[in-house]
Amino acid sequence: MPGHSPDTTGLALDNQQTRARAWFEELRDRICAAFATIEREAGSDASFDYADWQREDPEGQPGGGGVRGVMKGEVFEKVGVNVSTVGGAFNPDFARSINGAEDDPSFLATGISLVAHMANPHVPAVHMNMRFLSTTKRWFGGGADLNPPIPYDEDTASFHARLRAACSPYGPDVYERYSKWAEEYFFIPHRGVHRGVGGIFYDHLETGSDALFERNFRFTRDVGEAFLDIYPAIVRRRMDHSWDDEDRARMLAWRGRYAEFNLIYDRGTLFGLKTGGNIDAILMSLPPEARWD
Amino acid sequence: MPGHSPDTTGLALDNQQTRARAWFEELRDRICAAFATIEREAGSDASFDYADWQREDPEGQPGGGGVRGVMKGEVFEKVGVNVSTVGGAFNPDFARSINGAEDDPSFLATGISLVAHMANPHVPAVHMNMRFLSTTKRWFGGGADLNPPIPYDEDTASFHARLRAACSPYGPDVYERYSKWAEEYFFIPHRGVHRGVGGIFYDHLETGSDALFERNFRFTRDVGEAFLDIYPAIVRRRMDHSWDDEDRARMLAWRGRYAEFNLIYDRGTLFGLKTGGNIDAILMSLPPEARWD
Repeated sequence: MPGHSPDTTGLALDNQQTRARAWFEELRDRICAAFATIEREAGSDASFDYADWQREDPEGQPGGGGVRGVMKGEVFEKVGVNVSTVGGAFNPDFARSINGAEDDPSFLATGISLVAHMANPHVPAVHMNMRFLSTTKRWFGGGADLNPPIPYDEDTASFHARLRAACSPYGPDVYERYSKWAEEYFFIPHRGVHRGVGGIFYDHLETGSDALFERNFRFTRDVGEAFLDIYPAIVRRRMDHSWDDEDRARMLAWRGRYAEFNLIYDRGTLFGLKTGGNIDAILMSLPPEARWD
Repeated sequence: MPGHSPDTTGLALDNQQTRARAWFEELRDRICAAFATIEREAGSDASFDYADWQREDPEGQPGGGGVRGVMKGEVFEKVGVNVSTVGGAFNPDFARSINGAEDDPSFLATGISLVAHMANPHVPAVHMNMRFLSTTKRWFGGGADLNPPIPYDEDTASFHARLRAACSPYGPDVYERYSKWAEEYFFIPHRGVHRGVGGIFYDHLETGSDALFERNFRFTRDVGEAFLDIYPAIVRRRMDHSWDDEDRARMLAWRGRYAEFNLIYDRGTLFGLKTGGNIDAILMSLPPEARWD
């Protein structure tokens, strides 16, 4: 049921927050529809199940919540798409690490996050998330990266090219900076390897004026549109490739690395655990099946 | 090949360290032999493979190393038994969190660690580790806990009873304190559940005098003997139970929780990652296969 919205009773959203939230939910609807269409093309009738959750505020104040959408299909072995709009106060320790929350722990966060683990080892897994955060400051952040168990240069190139095109109106070095940030961020230090073939990562696109809000909100939407444009195209390019047990074994070992990254290093996971997020929504990024030799 | 010892060329071990090390390696040999015997009883010819690794000291000094032993059998789906003897200097940040290393980051650590993931969901998985650490202070630490995907009260009771018996010569409240410590430690806060049915956990059994060293070394040996006595008995009690796909699915989901604990909270994992340990040895505790719904 697209249109499913988190219950944010008691959170007073202003115009910027309301617009950001509405757009994240609209993007969710369009992504879920696009993914379900791919399942139809593969002859499957899989669809998204949606589950609401409420944030439990430690002070008992209204805390907002989210909607977790999950589809388990023939092409998408497991894909989760979350939207959430949560608010309240960070705990004091955590507040110190958050932009603009050093002296006032109040926050409101609205965003979308998505991880797809694919049945066919030739189809890359993918991650995407975007958020609008308000503390005493406000900013957009987000990112998307491609995670092929079996990489194809063609897929890597077209994923990066589409993100580069989305970034180019915003400055000649934007794509370089954000793709470099992704390269540094999506790295597994204890293994000495990248978790995938990169993408972009950005944070703290501050919105200190109306003009800056409009610009950075438009950038966020452009990145979202780029994702919706390129990822389904890559899936269609690979979904009919045949695969064997060896390919599957390679994917399951690769997913072990992915789980390590998400549990040890991922900031979104940490943010969720530290802010009383829904545990099933936070850990939805974990693979449906993984192996460690 | 029991008897396989880490190369510790260049680490000057004194008498206490040498004795502790020798005992950990002897315990490893006896445990591996006991586990291989169980495989024989199940008609399998599985045996342990051993691999040496060297600790890479950041300053290029001799750093010691370890031996990682792994067996993949019919009863033991994957069991890893590590011994290691490593030394050098903690990095300054990490040193601040370690007993006796606040002002001098030099350390020597010798120990054993073991995790067994079992093929039959009715047979509990298990974890055990013990170590002797030297900084400006010296102490023993260790623990063992039982992790049944499908718990049986009889197994829980006999595991705890044997550990209680090992603790009882050391004081009337030793078992209570250490089993309570395990209850607090082997807990997954973000899930609000214990990872298993407990056991014991202890740390900082300091050895400031010869008499204290002898006492705490003897305690360590008694715990090791208790483990070697009770765990194979529990395995034999359950290994012939029949199981079906539903039992296996329950085990794989349970193993997902186990992986979460080890990657997010486990101190041994953190210690290994922070001291340049061997990544395959550190993460050997991860399950051979796990699922997240």
